[in-house]
Amino acid sequence: MQYNALPLQRLIEQFERMPGIGRKTAQRIAFYILGLPKEESRMIADAITDACEKIHRCALCCNLTEDELCPICKNEKRDHSVICVVEDSQSLMAIEKTKEFSGVYHVLHGAISPLDGIGPEQLTVKELLQRLSDNAINEVIIATDSDIEGEATAMYLSKLIKPLDIKLSRIAFGLPVGTDIQYADEVTLSRAIEGRRSM
Amino acid sequence: MQYNALPLQRLIEQFERMPGIGRKTAQRIAFYILGLPKEESRMIADAITDACEKIHRCALCCNLTEDELCPICKNEKRDHSVICVVEDSQSLMAIEKTKEFSGVYHVLHGAISPLDGIGPEQLTVKELLQRLSDNAINEVIIATDSDIEGEATAMYLSKLIKPLDIKLSRIAFGLPVGTDIQYADEVTLSRAIEGRRSM
Repeated sequence: MQYNALPLQRLIEQFERMPGIGRKTAQRIAFYILGLPKEESRMIADAITDACEKIHRCALCCNLTEDELCPICKNEKRDHSVICVVEDSQSLMAIEKTKEFSGVYHVLHGAISPLDGIGPEQLTVKELLQRLSDNAINEVIIATDSDIEGEATAMYLSKLIKPLDIKLSRIAFGLPVGTDIQYADEVTLSRAIEGRRSM
Repeated sequence: MQYNALPLQRLIEQFERMPGIGRKTAQRIAFYILGLPKEESRMIADAITDACEKIHRCALCCNLTEDELCPICKNEKRDHSVICVVEDSQSLMAIEKTKEFSGVYHVLHGAISPLDGIGPEQLTVKELLQRLSDNAINEVIIATDSDIEGEATAMYLSKLIKPLDIKLSRIAFGLPVGTDIQYADEVTLSRAIEGRRSM
C-alpha cells in the first residue's frame, strides 16, 4: 500500500539519496518542507538551482567559486608561491579555518581510487602540473586525507613533483591534540613516533 | 573571511535549517548536490516545487494528498465508522505500517501547545467535530503522542467528544515490546501497571 502521495514520495526519495540522511530523516525533512510557507519552500528549490548554475571551478586552483577566480586566488595578500593540495573544497575550508596557512590551494576533486574507477585523469592533476611548470611556485604541501586513497594520491603526486625541484611536504600525521596515548590506535601511534621532531 | 561562494553558502544555510541536520551534514549535502549532474540537481529542486504545489490537505481527514480525497478516505473497503485521530501524517504512516487498523484517520496537524501559541483553533479540531456530527461515526481512537502536548490534546478532545455518545479510546501506553522491565523509566512503568489487562 502506498501511504504517501506520489510527489511527497518522490521528495522523500530525493532526500534519502543524500549522504548522511536515512529514511526517517528524509521523511522528516520532506514533511518539514511541506509545512513551510510557499515562498520559503521556493527559496530552497531556488538555492539548489542557483548554486548548481552559478558555481563552477576556479580557473586556477579548481576550488568552487562564482567568479572566474576564487577569492583566495584573487587575494594579492596571500603567498602565491606556496600551494597546498587538497582533495576537496571541504578540506580547503577546514584548513582556512585554522588561519595557519597563507598560501594558495589546489583542489583535486577526489583522490586516486582504482576500485571506484578514479585515476589521476579524473582529478585535476594536469591543472596542478600546469601551475607548477611556470617557475613561480616554491613549495607544495600535500594535504590529502590520511586514508588509503589520500595516501596513494600523495605518493603519486610526490613522484610527479619531486623531479621538478620544488620543495615538497606532506602534512604531519600523529596524535590528535588532547588525546591520551593509551587510547590512540597503533597505526596513528607508529606514525607519531616515526614523525617525531627534535625539541 | 568568507570561504564559500555566496550561492553555496545560501544552499548550506537552507539545509542547516532543516530538522535533524547540523552544519557539517548541511555542508556535505550542499557539496553532494554541486557534484551531481545538472539534470539530477534539477530533479531535486523540481521535487520540492512539485510537492509543495500539488500536495494539500484531504477534504475529509486533512491527511496530505494530491487529490480531493486521500487514498484512505477514498477506499471503500475501510471502516469509515472508526476514526483514528493522529497529530500528523507521519503518525498516520506509522500506524498504517502496522496493518492493524482498518478504519479511517483524522490528522490534527499538530498538538495543543500554549507555549508555542498552538491552540485548538490552529489544529483541525473543528473539522473533526464536523465529521463526528453526522452520526455515522461509532468509535474514535485518540492516537496523539505520549508527550505533554499529545496528552493535553487527548484530554481536550475527550472532553469534546464524550458528550457526543461515541465510543472513545486512547491507544495503550506501557512497556515497548522486547524491553527489560529493569531498564524502563518510572513513568512508563507506572503507566504499564495502571493500564494492566486481565489475562
